[in-house]
Amino acid sequence: MADTLAALRSLMASHTPPLDALVVPSEDYHQSEYVSARDKRRAFVSGFTGSAGLALVTKNEALLWTDGRYFLQAEQQLNDQWKLMRMGEDPSVDLWISTTLPEDSAIGIDFWCISVETAQKWKSLFAKNQQNLVPTTRNLVDEVWKDQPQAEINPVHVHPLKFSGRSVSDKLKDLRDNLKKEKARGIIITSLDEVVWLYNVRGSDVSYSPVVHAFAVVTTKEAFFYVDERKLSPEVKSYMEENKIIVKDYSAVSSDVALLASNQLTSVKDTLSNGASETEVNSHKIWVDPRCCYSLYSVLNPDQVLQQPSPLALPKSLKNPVEMEGLKNAHIRDGAAVVQYFAWLDKQMQEIYGASGYFKESESQNPKKHLGDAKLTEVSVSDKLEEFRAAKEHFRGLSFPTISSVGPNGAIIHYGPEAKTCAELDPNSMYLCDSGAQYLDGTTDITRTVHFGKPSEHEKRCYTAVLKGHFALGNARFPNGTTGHALDVLARVPLWSYGLDYRHGTGHGIGSYLNVHEGPHSISFRPGLNVPLQASMTVTDEPGYYEDGKFGIRLENVLIIKEAATQFNYANKGYLEFEHITWAPYQTKLIDASLLLPEEIKWVNNYHMKCRDILAPYLNESEKAWLNQATDPIAA
Amino acid sequence: MADTLAALRSLMASHTPPLDALVVPSEDYHQSEYVSARDKRRAFVSGFTGSAGLALVTKNEALLWTDGRYFLQAEQQLNDQWKLMRMGEDPSVDLWISTTLPEDSAIGIDFWCISVETAQKWKSLFAKNQQNLVPTTRNLVDEVWKDQPQAEINPVHVHPLKFSGRSVSDKLKDLRDNLKKEKARGIIITSLDEVVWLYNVRGSDVSYSPVVHAFAVVTTKEAFFYVDERKLSPEVKSYMEENKIIVKDYSAVSSDVALLASNQLTSVKDTLSNGASETEVNSHKIWVDPRCCYSLYSVLNPDQVLQQPSPLALPKSLKNPVEMEGLKNAHIRDGAAVVQYFAWLDKQMQEIYGASGYFKESESQNPKKHLGDAKLTEVSVSDKLEEFRAAKEHFRGLSFPTISSVGPNGAIIHYGPEAKTCAELDPNSMYLCDSGAQYLDGTTDITRTVHFGKPSEHEKRCYTAVLKGHFALGNARFPNGTTGHALDVLARVPLWSYGLDYRHGTGHGIGSYLNVHEGPHSISFRPGLNVPLQASMTVTDEPGYYEDGKFGIRLENVLIIKEAATQFNYANKGYLEFEHITWAPYQTKLIDASLLLPEEIKWVNNYHMKCRDILAPYLNESEKAWLNQATDPIAA
Repeated sequence: MADTLAALRSLMASHTPPLDALVVPSEDYHQSEYVSARDKRRAFVSGFTGSAGLALVTKNEALLWTDGRYFLQAEQQLNDQWKLMRMGEDPSVDLWISTTLPEDSAIGIDFWCISVETAQKWKSLFAKNQQNLVPTTRNLVDEVWKDQPQAEINPVHVHPLKFSGRSVSDKLKDLRDNLKKEKARGIIITSLDEVVWLYNVRGSDVSYSPVVHAFAVVTTKEAFFYVDERKLSPEVKSYMEENKIIVKDYSAVSSDVALLASNQLTSVKDTLSNGASETEVNSHKIWVDPRCCYSLYSVLNPDQVLQQPSPLALPKSLKNPVEMEGLKNAHIRDGAAVVQYFAWLDKQMQEIYGASGYFKESESQNPKKHLGDAKLTEVSVSDKLEEFRAAKEHFRGLSFPTISSVGPNGAIIHYGPEAKTCAELDPNSMYLCDSGAQYLDGTTDITRTVHFGKPSEHEKRCYTAVLKGHFALGNARFPNGTTGHALDVLARVPLWSYGLDYRHGTGHGIGSYLNVHEGPHSISFRPGLNVPLQASMTVTDEPGYYEDGKFGIRLENVLIIKEAATQFNYANKGYLEFEHITWAPYQTKLIDASLLLPEEIKWVNNYHMKCRDILAPYLNESEKAWLNQATDPIAA
Repeated sequence: MADTLAALRSLMASHTPPLDALVVPSEDYHQSEYVSARDKRRAFVSGFTGSAGLALVTKNEALLWTDGRYFLQAEQQLNDQWKLMRMGEDPSVDLWISTTLPEDSAIGIDFWCISVETAQKWKSLFAKNQQNLVPTTRNLVDEVWKDQPQAEINPVHVHPLKFSGRSVSDKLKDLRDNLKKEKARGIIITSLDEVVWLYNVRGSDVSYSPVVHAFAVVTTKEAFFYVDERKLSPEVKSYMEENKIIVKDYSAVSSDVALLASNQLTSVKDTLSNGASETEVNSHKIWVDPRCCYSLYSVLNPDQVLQQPSPLALPKSLKNPVEMEGLKNAHIRDGAAVVQYFAWLDKQMQEIYGASGYFKESESQNPKKHLGDAKLTEVSVSDKLEEFRAAKEHFRGLSFPTISSVGPNGAIIHYGPEAKTCAELDPNSMYLCDSGAQYLDGTTDITRTVHFGKPSEHEKRCYTAVLKGHFALGNARFPNGTTGHALDVLARVPLWSYGLDYRHGTGHGIGSYLNVHEGPHSISFRPGLNVPLQASMTVTDEPGYYEDGKFGIRLENVLIIKEAATQFNYANKGYLEFEHITWAPYQTKLIDASLLLPEEIKWVNNYHMKCRDILAPYLNESEKAWLNQATDPIAA
């Protein structure tokens, strides 16, 4: 790592212009949350492997910004050359640069790896101090990264109508209606999930997200797909042709955007007879999402840019009936896998560690007795969970790295156990498991927290407070127009009453065999984009509580937003409610029922009865027996 | 009214430049919510007397914008020359102008009556359509208003330290520290409550707010008070001198702001020897709150303006210990008056209308039997309530027009009954009373809704849902940094579960013998300024429900924000909670206890016990007996 920093600093010094600082963000050319191995530049440079963060290398310092989910992990992974900057507590990177680095500093970044909105914000802040954000002539990290993985050539698959529920031509028509409404000549689409959603294809270029490294440009007349053609089988090529999607090489996007800017982008050779009409020449705006990479934006004249959120984000978030059905089915199979897993784990914990088990509450009778070589680790058990999932229909992989965390590791909000260093299961500690999978018919995401021995009263109180927040949010009704930000507080108030809280949002949208984190809406204490929640959106409900060095608790279900059959309809707004589509029991042993209200007890019991009914067809007899016991009604 | 519109249109046509539209806002020169009689120009022009609204007169149309609290009242008061524009449903006035009036239109307004932020927003929107916002050469409404009341000459009083709790010199020191921190040469203060708060004076120029028509300008060295000197007694003049407040005529403010702009504003005659130092000349910014009138802003060079919220708003909202004590005491006396009033009204309703009364639940036995000429109207009973208040120590008047509303009038959120037209009390209808008073030691604001006969199950359900929201908000704990916007949802969720809601915010700050509506914080579904709630602020908790043509329900207490002794203190943020300082019973007859949670029942009973203890010393024996019955514990 020392070598890496020295090598980077040497490149910074010899750069034209010489760089006073180099920003290494987490994102790839598409501003993705999860990136391919060769795009993990920030992790390579800093050693911090969390999914969110930003590294800054100056002449004398190396700093790593990340958010509350990752403070503990970053502290563990950063060596002493690096300084951890806590987002929300320390100054943000742009503020730090503008107040710390001297005037006239040149701050370098690969313009492919920064979004338009971030670059604009930084540029205007830096300008106040005569500092400059400058594009590096090439990616400096790639230069010093000797064993950087090669870009993979993974096949592109057509995502059939029976799963996608809407044809490409339908989606293109809506998109073009939007272009016309905004008088835009075309749109540049750089978000990978938007590209594959629009063209009804999927791939495997990025772990956990079935996306393809590709760009799209759509004009009022044509649709372009920029991708490494080696990824396309003859069948996929015909599919593209049938759908009038013009395939071009990934690297052609820059020059094509330049053509788009001068209104010369067309696949039709005889441009004269297909020349743009008078109207089209006048309607010269090009739609660019603020999250588009700054590199492509830079090709355009700022005057011709219509900079506003992509018109694909909202329709992608509104699941059609086919997607809805698929999501529900995927969550049932997924819930069955989770129940199988916990039933299996319960038995293992008793057999190997002499734990009192999932249902009983006493200290381990024979701690760590280890039947022969048997040993359970955070990674070995999560592999078993993956096994249960992999046996399910339509399984295509995990939707994010499983967070399988024992005791103190549970307090590392996005903990990623590694086989060599991970902890052993412990019958006397809380165990938090946040996991999900990609199925052809839907993406899943679920968190349960359990204890196989004797939880403390404090752990029960915290679990119960988290459950109360999870309940209060998941069972709220609210009028159309309400944002997730407005509802966020419902999940926190039960924790706040004790002076407890959690440092992450409460919910995110989830894709349809697509990204596990999907916008444009969210449920968060941050105001954000303020996109109102709408019927047919998905959103998670996942409050938590984390005690550093001790334990973590999180409970997460996926919800679908639907119209509520309220008794009244004040102001004719229409009211909405949530439908839980995740099915797996809460551990009743961890619930202090004396802290629950009658309606909360009723809800838990009712939810548990539904788990029994819905999951039974997917379980064997012993698993069913375990689930029956796990869903035994609780009393006040 | 027809004459008024014709006269205005004639002045608009002869104006230089000729006006295509004239805006008549509700506000006076100080952007006050409550204005003096001579400043009620919008009410004079349109006939609509609500506290919030804006009139627009074009060549052919007359439109009035107001918010949800006033839709019903405006419908009743506007004649057919006027069109009601519903804020939140119809386009806003600036949008309407920009999309409806032709290019090059001149839109006139008195620049004294529009705030900087509104004028800037409008100007930039209008510019897109080549429209212009132009200052009228004089106030055109004043020209056509033949019997416009004269400006009153009301005495200014010193607000002594035993009520204000902080000296003028302390407040000026803090203000100047803020000026220095922001490198500002001076500040222009136009909000009336900020002027009188800063100088520890009170007056009676505006109904309901003990303020003085005055401006203040404070520089790093001097403090100016612009007021009609006839309002100052010799004693007050000496007080001003002692506190180094330089008194100048109200009309001098414009020219003095011009002097401030050129750094020549000083009361010291020999300016040479008191010339500004090099540093001061460089620090040339002038602090202007966005709510300052545009007229004074226009005197300045935009480059020299530091446009940001006044540094007085926050300290004014943070009550000092003396103010806190005063507010609590004022609310106890005020609560006693409210209890005396309802006990009296209960008796009257039974005697005059044969009502079953506050405690019993049956149809009127002898409806409208009218003992002789006896008759209770919305106004006559609110006069009686004022009588009870007026008998209390330190009473100085009402803090806003009492909303005394029977049945359907209760659904007019800010209903203002008038003696000639108001409704008679009705033993078979809900009665909503929202009232408050100014006492030397504090300002009060309380709402209770009652029924003296047999409420319907629906009315009870709605009352109970409002109570649940009132409880959920008022009993929440939350970390420092939380905004009122984030908490607003807590008061709505119980209503939302039925598909019910209310079209107003949930809470506002309240002054210390000052404005009944006070910022900078609030509890609202609108994000607003996003000022976090802080310990020592006051805020109301007043959810409601309104059924047009039928009834209105609102419950309102004043709360003080204080540090919460939570068991834990996650992330070291410090947690806050509310203390209720309003004391008057909820009508238990209207509570459907089967809809309350055990903790809600416990809270109501506990609050009622406190009402008994706290109010007893202020009540006679029969009133005490009534209160005892009103606070009889409810069972689940």
